[in-house]
Amino acid sequence: MYTLNEAQQLIDRHLKNIKFPEEPAELYDPVRYILSIGGKRVRPALVLLACDMFAGSVDSALHPATAVEIFHNFTLLHDDIMDKSELRRGKDTVHIKWNNNVAILSGDVMSITASRLLNNSPGAVLRGVNDVFTKTAIQVCEGQQMDMNFEKEQVVEESSYLKMIELKTAVLIAASLKIGAMLGGAAEKDAEILYNFGRDLGIAFQLQDDLLDTYGDPDLVGKKPGMDIVDNKKTMLMIMALEGGNDGQKEELIHWLSAEVFDPDRKISEVVRIFNELDIKSKVQEKIKHYYDNSLSHLKDLNCPDERKTELYNFACNLMKRKK
Amino acid sequence: MYTLNEAQQLIDRHLKNIKFPEEPAELYDPVRYILSIGGKRVRPALVLLACDMFAGSVDSALHPATAVEIFHNFTLLHDDIMDKSELRRGKDTVHIKWNNNVAILSGDVMSITASRLLNNSPGAVLRGVNDVFTKTAIQVCEGQQMDMNFEKEQVVEESSYLKMIELKTAVLIAASLKIGAMLGGAAEKDAEILYNFGRDLGIAFQLQDDLLDTYGDPDLVGKKPGMDIVDNKKTMLMIMALEGGNDGQKEELIHWLSAEVFDPDRKISEVVRIFNELDIKSKVQEKIKHYYDNSLSHLKDLNCPDERKTELYNFACNLMKRKK
Repeated sequence: MYTLNEAQQLIDRHLKNIKFPEEPAELYDPVRYILSIGGKRVRPALVLLACDMFAGSVDSALHPATAVEIFHNFTLLHDDIMDKSELRRGKDTVHIKWNNNVAILSGDVMSITASRLLNNSPGAVLRGVNDVFTKTAIQVCEGQQMDMNFEKEQVVEESSYLKMIELKTAVLIAASLKIGAMLGGAAEKDAEILYNFGRDLGIAFQLQDDLLDTYGDPDLVGKKPGMDIVDNKKTMLMIMALEGGNDGQKEELIHWLSAEVFDPDRKISEVVRIFNELDIKSKVQEKIKHYYDNSLSHLKDLNCPDERKTELYNFACNLMKRKK
Repeated sequence: MYTLNEAQQLIDRHLKNIKFPEEPAELYDPVRYILSIGGKRVRPALVLLACDMFAGSVDSALHPATAVEIFHNFTLLHDDIMDKSELRRGKDTVHIKWNNNVAILSGDVMSITASRLLNNSPGAVLRGVNDVFTKTAIQVCEGQQMDMNFEKEQVVEESSYLKMIELKTAVLIAASLKIGAMLGGAAEKDAEILYNFGRDLGIAFQLQDDLLDTYGDPDLVGKKPGMDIVDNKKTMLMIMALEGGNDGQKEELIHWLSAEVFDPDRKISEVVRIFNELDIKSKVQEKIKHYYDNSLSHLKDLNCPDERKTELYNFACNLMKRKK
């Protein structure tokens, strides 16, 4: 059995061996760039671990696993244009280092390259793997659209928010595990259980991200806390505060969400004060625990020896204990 | 045997039957829009005709054929952003009617949808069809990048230009025919011959486009002639004139290519005068004939009864006789 760390290293090595054409340089340099500036390779490593769990050939899962990583990086290129993000993994985003057109077209070629790599899946599961992948990829686009829509909305329902993070973040983690299981020869039911494990873990992971942005230790998180508040992000914290606050608290929150000119530090401290009055931190922690517990219960249901579940179990635990 | 016209109608009907989700509306409305404002459905019709040539099931080729059309329309969405085009098929482009972000993400979802539809290909050819499609889709991106690079270059080699139009335009026509042939159960050699027929015809078609822009009848073409000249497009006409002109003619052409302020009508008439002096029209016509003859010779090589080649033969003839 491979460890997560070993799987990540396998992916890194395999990615380095994929030779993108030299020309046109404007098309492929950004692809080489985004794949070289880091990224933890979690999704493709999960493909390998899930495959390994069912004693499948990890070697034959390398191409499809890499497909998932390249698809993920394609979404980063395009999301960064749409969100006007200037930094990714501490470096210039592609549309900043080059320009929007380059980021669009390099992203396009990455998305297609992902499909091309996936076409190396063994014949018995090729159609099934393509089906899961394309369905998921479409959902990721839907999630990104919902996220952009939320920016324009004053109030977002908790259920809509959960749906958005499920589509934008969780389904690709879930699909990575399901595809890995299929490649490993798992029964359909087990592949589906792993999907649910990944989906619930992915939702917990994103909610944790929301929490860390406001309540994380800045030295560990590596950025100033409260940036989501400054940016008016409709995080689970803000959604629960708007839902649970009294009239005065809601009014204050809406004041800060509508303010066009403000002192960022004061905005953060005032909004955090209301979050604290409403005990939002514990309430979000409870939600995280709910999804985390759900994900572990799926893992229990899985029809494979317990010792083969250890690596995914540890992965989930470490994810939940993370401080950054 | 279906006629081209019947095949186009089949595709139109099939496209109308594909139900894209209602939500998120910002993601799927542009998809419905671009697919509803026209387009001759030539590429998917070629998939069906090629399949039909080998007595394959046209019904089972409908999904893959539609995939090609949706992929083609995805490239239009993204190319129109990159080229800052405001009109497509006489209507607002998606990034004008909505905005750039919408055109990026709707394009992305169309590209993935194409892969998803292609996954309905019969098992025996699924991997092969995916292989041709993804390879071609990557080449189309390379062609678009080359085209954008040419805008910044003063001089473009004829061979580079031919490579660019092969990648940007011809390979998708070629691949449509090859995929159709594969779906129809053609031998590998015949599928490859049809590919070559489509590639050469596609190159001839694009060179004709260059010619019609300058020398077409404006009443038939439906636009003012010479817009490529105004836009400094490195068309085959301009490339051959720069290559074949004497020092004085080259100097004049470069003057017009570099001029930042100019009277468009004067620029057109002066450049056309040089084209005429160099007999560029006949020279490009010769090149078109070369590729057209090549494409027909491939068709002759094809191992199938002559009466089954009629529709593609007529298609090629009509394409070459077109005045718009």
